[in-house]
Amino acid sequence: MSILVVGSIAYDTVETPYGSVQDSPGGSALYFSAAASLFSPVNVVGVVGSDFNASKISFLKKRGVNLDGLYVESGDTFRWGGRYHKDLNQRDTLFTYLNVFEDFQPIIPEQYKDSKYIFLANIAPDLQLQVLDQIHKPKLVILDTMNFWISGKRDTLEEVFKRSDIVILNDEEVREFTNEYSLLTAINLIHKLGPKAIVIKKGEHGALLHYEDQFFFTPAYPLDRVIDPTGAGDSFAGGFVGYIAKEGKITKTTLRKAVMYGSSVASYNVQDFSFNALIDLDMKKIQNRFEEFKLMTQV
Amino acid sequence: MSILVVGSIAYDTVETPYGSVQDSPGGSALYFSAAASLFSPVNVVGVVGSDFNASKISFLKKRGVNLDGLYVESGDTFRWGGRYHKDLNQRDTLFTYLNVFEDFQPIIPEQYKDSKYIFLANIAPDLQLQVLDQIHKPKLVILDTMNFWISGKRDTLEEVFKRSDIVILNDEEVREFTNEYSLLTAINLIHKLGPKAIVIKKGEHGALLHYEDQFFFTPAYPLDRVIDPTGAGDSFAGGFVGYIAKEGKITKTTLRKAVMYGSSVASYNVQDFSFNALIDLDMKKIQNRFEEFKLMTQV
Repeated sequence: MSILVVGSIAYDTVETPYGSVQDSPGGSALYFSAAASLFSPVNVVGVVGSDFNASKISFLKKRGVNLDGLYVESGDTFRWGGRYHKDLNQRDTLFTYLNVFEDFQPIIPEQYKDSKYIFLANIAPDLQLQVLDQIHKPKLVILDTMNFWISGKRDTLEEVFKRSDIVILNDEEVREFTNEYSLLTAINLIHKLGPKAIVIKKGEHGALLHYEDQFFFTPAYPLDRVIDPTGAGDSFAGGFVGYIAKEGKITKTTLRKAVMYGSSVASYNVQDFSFNALIDLDMKKIQNRFEEFKLMTQV
Repeated sequence: MSILVVGSIAYDTVETPYGSVQDSPGGSALYFSAAASLFSPVNVVGVVGSDFNASKISFLKKRGVNLDGLYVESGDTFRWGGRYHKDLNQRDTLFTYLNVFEDFQPIIPEQYKDSKYIFLANIAPDLQLQVLDQIHKPKLVILDTMNFWISGKRDTLEEVFKRSDIVILNDEEVREFTNEYSLLTAINLIHKLGPKAIVIKKGEHGALLHYEDQFFFTPAYPLDRVIDPTGAGDSFAGGFVGYIAKEGKITKTTLRKAVMYGSSVASYNVQDFSFNALIDLDMKKIQNRFEEFKLMTQV
């Protein structure tokens, strides 16, 4: 079943210890789509400037990504620049030019309003609410956010939490949102708001799922080199939501496997700059890595 | 089969956000013995001062721990004081008085020299070599160390690595010892020195094993509260080595299960001060937690 994603579309300028790229297409909506479309059709809502070169994302169309909701406004595309430290867990933001993204209003095209799987990528919580207000009968709402909104738009964000079925956060965000150091206590506080499932991304330490009173853990795939961590979280979310939408049901096993598929796709994504590694990725490679994940945790 | 452990025996004074204890028995050899003896007989070599109150560790004797190698010297027992921060991953050392431990020479009693499983707890590398020189035909040598020896006694420590079958380190130590950020690269460098298996402890992020070109991951047991992290690494090692010695064979499955047993015992240990939580621990509880670990990683 098809997925609706609403998020940012950007030109990223990224430096890592292994090289750099300038004005490479990025943003949460594109990373998510590149990953999720490996599993299920994806409908994108986002905005770009008149400088955006659509040929750079032509592979998405071939993979069943519907770009009817990609609005082109006069002005420049959102630009972000960042430099990663040697350990790749830390980065400095060098610049952020919101450009046309500053006035983005998520207008959902009529033909998307019956979407069942909704991924609210990391954008302002009031925009996330606007998205939900336009969808007729979502089956599953999955939320991503970041510390900027947790500290700046706490109340609105809490409303989005209440209307979400699954939240995907990193461990710092979980602790900041709940003001609780213990992840177990923090998780229970989030469940009380509404979400039935919580996914916590821990970077090189893997990811965990809490659903129906049970934990599930997946390690990060051990890589010799992480070339560019940009988009790791969104490509994880893409594999995660993509697999759930493909299965079309929400069970414990589906969610657990979805975490492993998300980890598999994210592990490929970080092996090259931008989402280059996702362009030629296929289900065979993903399935191989999925099996490797299983071997890494079985006794 | 019985295990020989050589390590420190201390009186610890510990403050955590949940309380404090003063002059509580501790040290790597005692934490290890309290954990390993749940699986296999343990022979201890260490030193205490004339102030040491042996009645505090009488439970060890009941559990098959042989204390013939516990030397009592005139003077005070090694004392360590530490205060843990709110997040429990960081601690300040408040004091370290080596006392009788300063001149410790590990004399292995004759009846221990045929020990097959040797755990070299975190002591000076030259003492670790002295231990190995006295053992007739060890079957498995397991090494623990710390950043203090990595930076201060690099060459001697490398000799111990060469004579060890398994090394147990935390992720920081692995990176410091190899001067490599990538754990995968670091692991390969350590294998080249000799150890066939490497166990990396990652605290709240669990533990991983690398053996026969394969990774195995176990999460940390999710706890609402960690009361006192002191001895987590040594009790992990105790469960790990204890299980291997009990099985009496070194296979992929044994090592993987050993990591899970180590994690189970360590998760109990941190739920109370000192090794109090290990005193009444039994195999039934350990087995329950082991099964919970399995459920947390299966799809």
